[in-house]
Amino acid sequence: MKNKLYFSAISKRAEEKAFDAIVEEQKSIGYYALPDQDIGPILEYCSSIPETIETIAVIGIGGSSLGAKAVYEFIKPVKELSRKLYFFESTDPININELLSKCDMNKTHFLVISKSGSTVETFSIYKYIYSLQQDPSFYTFITDPGSPLEKYALEIEASVLYLPDNVGGRFSVLSTVGLVPLALCGIDIKDLLTGAQMIKERFFDRGYVYDMLLEKAVYYAENHAQYSINCIFAYSETLKYFCQWYVQLWGESLGKHQRNSAFHVGLTPIGLIGPEDQHSFLQLIMEGTRDKSVTFIKIEDFHDDTTIPDITLPHLEMLDTLNNLPFSKLINMQCDSVIEALLDQNNIPLDTITIQSVTESNIGSLIFYYELLTSLVGELIDVNTYDQPGVEAGKIILKSKLQEL
Amino acid sequence: MKNKLYFSAISKRAEEKAFDAIVEEQKSIGYYALPDQDIGPILEYCSSIPETIETIAVIGIGGSSLGAKAVYEFIKPVKELSRKLYFFESTDPININELLSKCDMNKTHFLVISKSGSTVETFSIYKYIYSLQQDPSFYTFITDPGSPLEKYALEIEASVLYLPDNVGGRFSVLSTVGLVPLALCGIDIKDLLTGAQMIKERFFDRGYVYDMLLEKAVYYAENHAQYSINCIFAYSETLKYFCQWYVQLWGESLGKHQRNSAFHVGLTPIGLIGPEDQHSFLQLIMEGTRDKSVTFIKIEDFHDDTTIPDITLPHLEMLDTLNNLPFSKLINMQCDSVIEALLDQNNIPLDTITIQSVTESNIGSLIFYYELLTSLVGELIDVNTYDQPGVEAGKIILKSKLQEL
Repeated sequence: MKNKLYFSAISKRAEEKAFDAIVEEQKSIGYYALPDQDIGPILEYCSSIPETIETIAVIGIGGSSLGAKAVYEFIKPVKELSRKLYFFESTDPININELLSKCDMNKTHFLVISKSGSTVETFSIYKYIYSLQQDPSFYTFITDPGSPLEKYALEIEASVLYLPDNVGGRFSVLSTVGLVPLALCGIDIKDLLTGAQMIKERFFDRGYVYDMLLEKAVYYAENHAQYSINCIFAYSETLKYFCQWYVQLWGESLGKHQRNSAFHVGLTPIGLIGPEDQHSFLQLIMEGTRDKSVTFIKIEDFHDDTTIPDITLPHLEMLDTLNNLPFSKLINMQCDSVIEALLDQNNIPLDTITIQSVTESNIGSLIFYYELLTSLVGELIDVNTYDQPGVEAGKIILKSKLQEL
Repeated sequence: MKNKLYFSAISKRAEEKAFDAIVEEQKSIGYYALPDQDIGPILEYCSSIPETIETIAVIGIGGSSLGAKAVYEFIKPVKELSRKLYFFESTDPININELLSKCDMNKTHFLVISKSGSTVETFSIYKYIYSLQQDPSFYTFITDPGSPLEKYALEIEASVLYLPDNVGGRFSVLSTVGLVPLALCGIDIKDLLTGAQMIKERFFDRGYVYDMLLEKAVYYAENHAQYSINCIFAYSETLKYFCQWYVQLWGESLGKHQRNSAFHVGLTPIGLIGPEDQHSFLQLIMEGTRDKSVTFIKIEDFHDDTTIPDITLPHLEMLDTLNNLPFSKLINMQCDSVIEALLDQNNIPLDTITIQSVTESNIGSLIFYYELLTSLVGELIDVNTYDQPGVEAGKIILKSKLQEL
């Protein structure tokens, strides 16, 4: 993974301070340790799921689903996977029934994931699915030790797996929450963690990625009032769900009251996919208000030689320059052209991330890079990166509405 | 369709001025007339496509695909459609091959849609597909009269359909561009236009929707420096691609240099889907920087009685309040709870749009409502709503890169 910045931050002191804070934070926040975990027990558990199971269905929402979805959808198009993976995330009945129509109930294993063990969406859907499949051997529950969900699972004699300590939902993709569904589908979770570990080591050893992460975090924090919107512009369809994962990670971590002030702060994440969004969002970046930074993500080698054939279309000879060009080269030329065009503009902070190819290791690196960046920016804008008090109010209102019924 | 605003604009004079400008603009901008068109020729053309065709594939990008996709994905989950519809929008080779694997080449009709007739993505993909299927009867081309693409299509004796005058890509869903693929799949395009027409009439007759549209547009324009981000929070999975269509419409229309100043202006669109994004983006809206307005879109009647069963789970008795509740009621209660929670906050401008049910007519109304709103805001922030000069620079750079090869 390469990262090139086309801007520079001013405060070296802020960089040092943020780094020190992260080194300290590492002792109490759980996600930093995930790349180094022993995955033996997870693999052993996964091998206990019978081969007759053809589909894995996650019942979970937000941090319980977005990470696994990002990795699965990244790898799926390039690797023959052993099982299909679906996500029940919505209480939209149309969606629930559409997903269920794809699941043979005797060949589907359900992973019910809820940290608190009382998420309304998750349990509404679980109750419905339970009414269709009452055999507990078709379920695994992933929750915090001691939660009511753990007690329930033990009572019905279903499998229970646990979240590690102090790992919040949106930072949990490299824990059981993400690793179990992914391993069950044949994703190489060892490689995934190796990729994450590489970034972790380089960062904490002040190696290659350290400078970029620090400089970028300080720049975003220093300029957060002007560049309040941070776009990822990824040039591959395979990164669509990675963008969704990023949106939760960034938005929910950084959109907060400051710890030491009454200010509302926050940076707004936007996930874009090129080339489609060249024909949608690019105009706004190019000519709209100067409130956006953009990170381009490119895949260097698609391992795909699909090529535009050497065909001349009468009256369309001007398109012959496309002939014999591999699509993988075209998409990267499109990306480079947009980058060049934006660099010609003033006041649009850009950087590029290049990942070598579509592999577990590379998405693992990208995930850990973004987790570190989020932690650094959170520190620098003085928020608690790891809580989400703002979502409680709506839950309390819903609860009282439900009780009134 | 109902629309309720929880904020009010100050300038009644601005409202009158914007309305007058739209009445004037209607004479030259083509999309306003689309609801009143005669769809006879389109239906006749569609009936000429043989019944052996099971799949329709659009080769097009941005305005050539997003509108049809929005309507198709809205209706698909609730209606038995006659054909499948796929969209080739990306030059990502992984994506192209994945889509092609779903298309039986002898049962697929391709709609090649390019207004200019020289879109790089569209023709790269077309050339590739043409190398697999060279029979022109499997293709229909939709373009501007006189374009090189028209000449090509006529030369190979394939069908050609035309875009109406002065209809830009992102405003073209109710023209041949959207109507042909939709009608070919069994979507009722007459109802779609009726829904649009209803909004059009009410607006120009200063009926029900007139006040909301004007007030909202003026509020967004008056406060564009503070509320520079406009979120749609739609409580149904079926509106996911409508949100993508909205992002192009809003971003590409409003992100501009002002006509009469050197200012960069623009409002940033974000599409969210509830309840999932309650577990992702909501925290940022609730507690982050006060730079966002939010429009909630609800579906009143899902015509679905899928109900949470009356099951008590040991140790999880607190979730019994969910029992016997239809999911359709739960999702709307979730929406209402989030609205209430946000109304308790200061400085978050909200409005709600309620559509009665998932029908062609209702999505037609919603589309035309957003087109009118875009035109009004564009007028009020002094931009040319209908051009996109900012995307040209990247295209020129790409062209010269291609020539250098």
